[in-house]
Amino acid sequence: MTGGKRAGPAGTGDPAGRVGPAEHLDPSGKPDPRKAGASPPRPLVVGVAGGSGSGKTTVVREILHGLCPDRVSVVHHDAYYRDYAHLPQDVRATINFDHPDSLETELLESHLRTLLAGEAIQMPVYDFTTHTRTAQTVPVRPTEVMIVDGILVLAEPSLRKLMDIRIFVDTDADLRFIRRLDRDIRERGRSLESVVQQYLESVRPMHMDFVEPSKRWADVIIPVGGENRVAIDMVVAKLASIV
Amino acid sequence: MTGGKRAGPAGTGDPAGRVGPAEHLDPSGKPDPRKAGASPPRPLVVGVAGGSGSGKTTVVREILHGLCPDRVSVVHHDAYYRDYAHLPQDVRATINFDHPDSLETELLESHLRTLLAGEAIQMPVYDFTTHTRTAQTVPVRPTEVMIVDGILVLAEPSLRKLMDIRIFVDTDADLRFIRRLDRDIRERGRSLESVVQQYLESVRPMHMDFVEPSKRWADVIIPVGGENRVAIDMVVAKLASIV
Repeated sequence: MTGGKRAGPAGTGDPAGRVGPAEHLDPSGKPDPRKAGASPPRPLVVGVAGGSGSGKTTVVREILHGLCPDRVSVVHHDAYYRDYAHLPQDVRATINFDHPDSLETELLESHLRTLLAGEAIQMPVYDFTTHTRTAQTVPVRPTEVMIVDGILVLAEPSLRKLMDIRIFVDTDADLRFIRRLDRDIRERGRSLESVVQQYLESVRPMHMDFVEPSKRWADVIIPVGGENRVAIDMVVAKLASIV
Repeated sequence: MTGGKRAGPAGTGDPAGRVGPAEHLDPSGKPDPRKAGASPPRPLVVGVAGGSGSGKTTVVREILHGLCPDRVSVVHHDAYYRDYAHLPQDVRATINFDHPDSLETELLESHLRTLLAGEAIQMPVYDFTTHTRTAQTVPVRPTEVMIVDGILVLAEPSLRKLMDIRIFVDTDADLRFIRRLDRDIRERGRSLESVVQQYLESVRPMHMDFVEPSKRWADVIIPVGGENRVAIDMVVAKLASIV
């Protein structure tokens, strides 16, 4: 492969000012510590971001289908919504769940560090109807590839810096809205009016403030989301060449 | 690999209305005709587009470095500028060389079809100082991977439909201008004023009219161009898994 080659002229750096890939992807020709054979390999962390309705979930599912199930696992940012059990129901209804502050990202970061250290974690299970964290958890063990998915995973510097590959699934806003509308009406029994209202009051402004700007941290942008076979094959080919 | 899997629910199609990948990439599980072994394989055509100064050339060079040289060759759209030998020099100076009409795309399309049919072509050699096609040509033979690069290759439906993988190298406009400025001053002895004038009068409007809209035809968008090691490795891994 091309691990020992440099992309550009020496010293040009990255104009976007990104944090470089983790050590074992370093293109400078350093030996790959994951191939030393002694301790278990450090997981390769792949972030998959993109707006609501972008097709992110399909992309993640297709990556999973393309790889050996033993070697890949997924941690969902939206399992880490904060537990609002201490607030009355009417107050919970006023919380902006499209804002980064509604997520306990610091716990996800800590869990990722635990996984990177080779230990399993207990991923929370969120109850979206009551906006509380349930008593259950889902065990996630460290695997060679760890996918971290979520609308805001590239918007959070603490998550971004732990990622080796940053993917942004980029679908036009009208298509994203239509998918969301379809899902919320069919699967969640919502009214057209309530979907439109939430979209205009919360989803869309938060997308513009946090999700869209986070695209510039991506290593690869996948247009049209889950129907993009060519791009998904490319991601799978890269991961399959590593694990 | 994942060649037999489908990306999305059946019948969802591609919201961007793109022409699908060529037959041998068909995800429907049809046998791969390139593996039949009888006739020489149909080349896989990879389009690499992106604005002036985007880092497109570096991306192409890195793809070439990552693959066996016998198996990949490149056809440059900008070798196909029209021959303006019949026009007086002062008229040639008024031609907009950032407009698609200044390129003989129909000849490039015909050459690609010849390569796809398994025959070599003679790629033109353009003299950019006189805006004429020289008497020389460069032979290009059909290889397993054929890269077609150029600012406008995704803006031309006739080229796009021949491509199996469509890549757009997407770099912010200010960075593209700075790279172009540096190149034109250092390598071409141009003045700052003339570079700015050409950029504002021709490069920028043509980018907005033709290059930027062509991004929506891409299968994969590579941000930050040639310094993006992760994305380039991904493309190379996919091509290496095929050839």
